[in-house]
Amino acid sequence: MTQQLQITKVRTLKEKPEVAGIPFGSYFTDHMFSMDYSAELGWHNAAIIPYAPLEVSPSAQALHYGQTVFEGLKAYNVDGEVTLFRPDENFKRLNRSLERLSMPKIDEAFALQALLELLKVEHDWVPDGEGQALYVRPFVFANEPYLGVRPAKTYKMLIVLSPVAGYYGAQLNPTSIYVEDSYVRAVRGGVGEVKFGGNYAASLHAQQKAADLGYEQVLWLDGVHQEYVEEVGSMNIFFVRNGELLTPELNGSILPGITRKSLIELAGEMGYTVNEERIHIKDIEDGIKDGSITEVFGAGTAAVVAPVGIMNIHGTDYRINGNEIGEVTQKLYDTLTGIQTGKLEDKNSWVLQVTSTVK
Amino acid sequence: MTQQLQITKVRTLKEKPEVAGIPFGSYFTDHMFSMDYSAELGWHNAAIIPYAPLEVSPSAQALHYGQTVFEGLKAYNVDGEVTLFRPDENFKRLNRSLERLSMPKIDEAFALQALLELLKVEHDWVPDGEGQALYVRPFVFANEPYLGVRPAKTYKMLIVLSPVAGYYGAQLNPTSIYVEDSYVRAVRGGVGEVKFGGNYAASLHAQQKAADLGYEQVLWLDGVHQEYVEEVGSMNIFFVRNGELLTPELNGSILPGITRKSLIELAGEMGYTVNEERIHIKDIEDGIKDGSITEVFGAGTAAVVAPVGIMNIHGTDYRINGNEIGEVTQKLYDTLTGIQTGKLEDKNSWVLQVTSTVK
Repeated sequence: MTQQLQITKVRTLKEKPEVAGIPFGSYFTDHMFSMDYSAELGWHNAAIIPYAPLEVSPSAQALHYGQTVFEGLKAYNVDGEVTLFRPDENFKRLNRSLERLSMPKIDEAFALQALLELLKVEHDWVPDGEGQALYVRPFVFANEPYLGVRPAKTYKMLIVLSPVAGYYGAQLNPTSIYVEDSYVRAVRGGVGEVKFGGNYAASLHAQQKAADLGYEQVLWLDGVHQEYVEEVGSMNIFFVRNGELLTPELNGSILPGITRKSLIELAGEMGYTVNEERIHIKDIEDGIKDGSITEVFGAGTAAVVAPVGIMNIHGTDYRINGNEIGEVTQKLYDTLTGIQTGKLEDKNSWVLQVTSTVK
Repeated sequence: MTQQLQITKVRTLKEKPEVAGIPFGSYFTDHMFSMDYSAELGWHNAAIIPYAPLEVSPSAQALHYGQTVFEGLKAYNVDGEVTLFRPDENFKRLNRSLERLSMPKIDEAFALQALLELLKVEHDWVPDGEGQALYVRPFVFANEPYLGVRPAKTYKMLIVLSPVAGYYGAQLNPTSIYVEDSYVRAVRGGVGEVKFGGNYAASLHAQQKAADLGYEQVLWLDGVHQEYVEEVGSMNIFFVRNGELLTPELNGSILPGITRKSLIELAGEMGYTVNEERIHIKDIEDGIKDGSITEVFGAGTAAVVAPVGIMNIHGTDYRINGNEIGEVTQKLYDTLTGIQTGKLEDKNSWVLQVTSTVK
């Protein structure tokens, strides 16, 4: 099943930017991975090609019915060795997303191999500054020019790469979140548990509302009762309650984050009890009031761990840990990023050495 | 505020297809309308240009986060006069969709004027066969090359045209629908009440399931209780109960269809009582069993009115009116399509004469 991978290099390389100053996901490398799907040929045309505009039909289904899914992960520069963190988990989840959106699945092993080849070509783009990484964005969209509402018959998969300085800047400053009790992100039976592009478009209005009110992120409640905690913007959420970790259980509408999963495993190894539960927002409010909840943080690929300093619940602002990053949050951040950047031992074999794997 | 409209015509016109044989939305005319938006310039570059592939960045936000909305309406050929049915309603709804998806609103009057100009250029493409029309698809998508999750700063609006023979073929054969009680389309607080592209991608999996089970369409239930009737695939749904019309009330998760609205108004004028209610699926099942519900039909732009002959409710198949089109359904279909195609008097001034308006 494995295809040949064609490689076409650009003639003139772009000038590499000063990574520290650029906004997340705004600058792209010289090359990208591209692969086409048709009902007749399956996935074909696998190639590393120059990063350049695509020719897309005005009637391409993705532009009309939003059939598009994506993934996000980071490549790190560890003393000149390029590494990835659990990339197999991303391609597994990509296949779950593809299946849920009635799109054709990919060969996970081949896609990972293609990414490794791409990273070999773009080796010099992986930044080595503190908190910096090369963000990896695999995505698949329907490009059949057809306006009937049915799954498309042709698709394109791309992997583009973007040097990033860290989603929230280099500093681990606490973020502020607004508990959204009017708009809803997802509901069981829907598409909230996969990385479907439309989930993010649908979240923008509430995100804007929160920004207008002065908060950086939205905390979503469940779609059925609008009472149970689901997730934050582009992250899962964790609480430290009586010294134990607490996070919403996966219920069919929450995205199963790879950072979430890794933190749960890591926290267990570090001796913390981790509770995955259905969490009522009232219990969070009470816990903050009575002091049993001492820390709150988000967890996602872009931010890794993002401490929450202010939480607005039903109109009341609560300060968490004096709007400072907490001890447990800091420890989890240091441990996970330490493993990701090669400073700490990788006991679980989560880190893939790209440079030594691909010759 | 009104822009100039540039017109660039193709040198060689395409051969026009035999409309009767082509699938819905698979063949496009020679020209399209195009307009760009940037935060600095607002909507600009309004032009009628050759229908051709677009240059789209691999990092265009629509391909990642699905920020795209659309509309659908039909142009009819009435003895050589091109007409539209309530096009102002479509541009009004497009603006509601744009607002909900944090996208920039358009000048409705200018967009309509641009469509009229486009139809003047493509006059010969409007088919005159029974049930045939030129399907009009305005849509807007985010094309800024940026991977941060926030509303894009640049967009493209296009209007493409496709000659159609009628969504379900020329015959008004009853369709079969499967009441979906596991997957959910939309929930109040979400984006179900606007014409957001992702709503359609998110519906495909359930649509496939229904097709695998032998049904043509899905009837969605509400996202909170999964008990109340919402809408069918790409249509609103109506029931005839004790000689009166019954349709789900607009509740924040149902698309406010223009055909739905027109049928409600028309049925009232024709002397029918129309009830817009919250409808429990159990009451529909009981009504079919006890004979009080005699007809079921879908209503949408593509199909106009689509009789339902088979309804599967929680595993049981119910035949509606002996799987034949009912009297009320036929009367409403004849009346609405009669007005649309100029065979019946247009008392409400719903029909816009394109040819006589644009000189």
